[in-house]
Amino acid sequence: MRLTRFTDYSLRVLIYLGLQDDQLVTIRKISDAYGISRNHLMKVVSLLTRMGYLKAQRGPGGGIRLARIPEDINLADVIRDTEEDLVMVECFDEEGSCVISPACKLHHIIGEALNAYISTLRKYTLQDLIDPKDELARLLQVERNAA
Amino acid sequence: MRLTRFTDYSLRVLIYLGLQDDQLVTIRKISDAYGISRNHLMKVVSLLTRMGYLKAQRGPGGGIRLARIPEDINLADVIRDTEEDLVMVECFDEEGSCVISPACKLHHIIGEALNAYISTLRKYTLQDLIDPKDELARLLQVERNAA
Repeated sequence: MRLTRFTDYSLRVLIYLGLQDDQLVTIRKISDAYGISRNHLMKVVSLLTRMGYLKAQRGPGGGIRLARIPEDINLADVIRDTEEDLVMVECFDEEGSCVISPACKLHHIIGEALNAYISTLRKYTLQDLIDPKDELARLLQVERNAA
Repeated sequence: MRLTRFTDYSLRVLIYLGLQDDQLVTIRKISDAYGISRNHLMKVVSLLTRMGYLKAQRGPGGGIRLARIPEDINLADVIRDTEEDLVMVECFDEEGSCVISPACKLHHIIGEALNAYISTLRKYTLQDLIDPKDELARLLQVERNAA
């Protein structure tokens, strides 16, 4: 019941780009800033681009940036999109479905709890995560244009 | 963000025992009923016993049973106790803590969402899970005393 590394890295990429004032950024810059694997980040960036969170520009001078403003990137959506499995209870194992699943209420109860979880995240966007902007930019050594 | 197999199996053991009218049951009976690994179940039963959910009686004729009535076994407690990690966001990797953690609000937001998740589970006990009792007992081929 912890978020996957994939979601963790997705949020870090979004935070980094949210601090960027729409400049193109390389994956290497992000991996250097967080001290995390560039290989992992490439997969994350590729999926976030396909999902419409990022725009990528190839070639020399290329890089990535947010496809939408931070206020329009809802955290509930990000976590729904990046977590592989929000079902949150097995009910199925290698040999097939659990024998009591036709009568078991667990799935329904866990589903209700999950809705409460997602509804809470729904209140927040990337904009909430990139505040305080200056403090985060300093920690990531992001060079920001003077406002 | 799915519950671990450990939690899944813990809930299955509790459901099985909740259908039992306080009889002692062997681990083999539970593993046969669900068609799941006896080895895995032994670890689950051992921990649930140490946590005070089950009582175990060793030796011939021995077995396990619930230590409390189903109404007193709250699902929020079970999931808190059996999930290793409810923090739900990495923030730490092999090399140490995330560089932005001093200013990052994600931990707080995820914590709020997790509270909403656990508060929902808090409304339910094992009693809710073992209803409809007859239907579940039939699926698990549990022999119940006539009421």
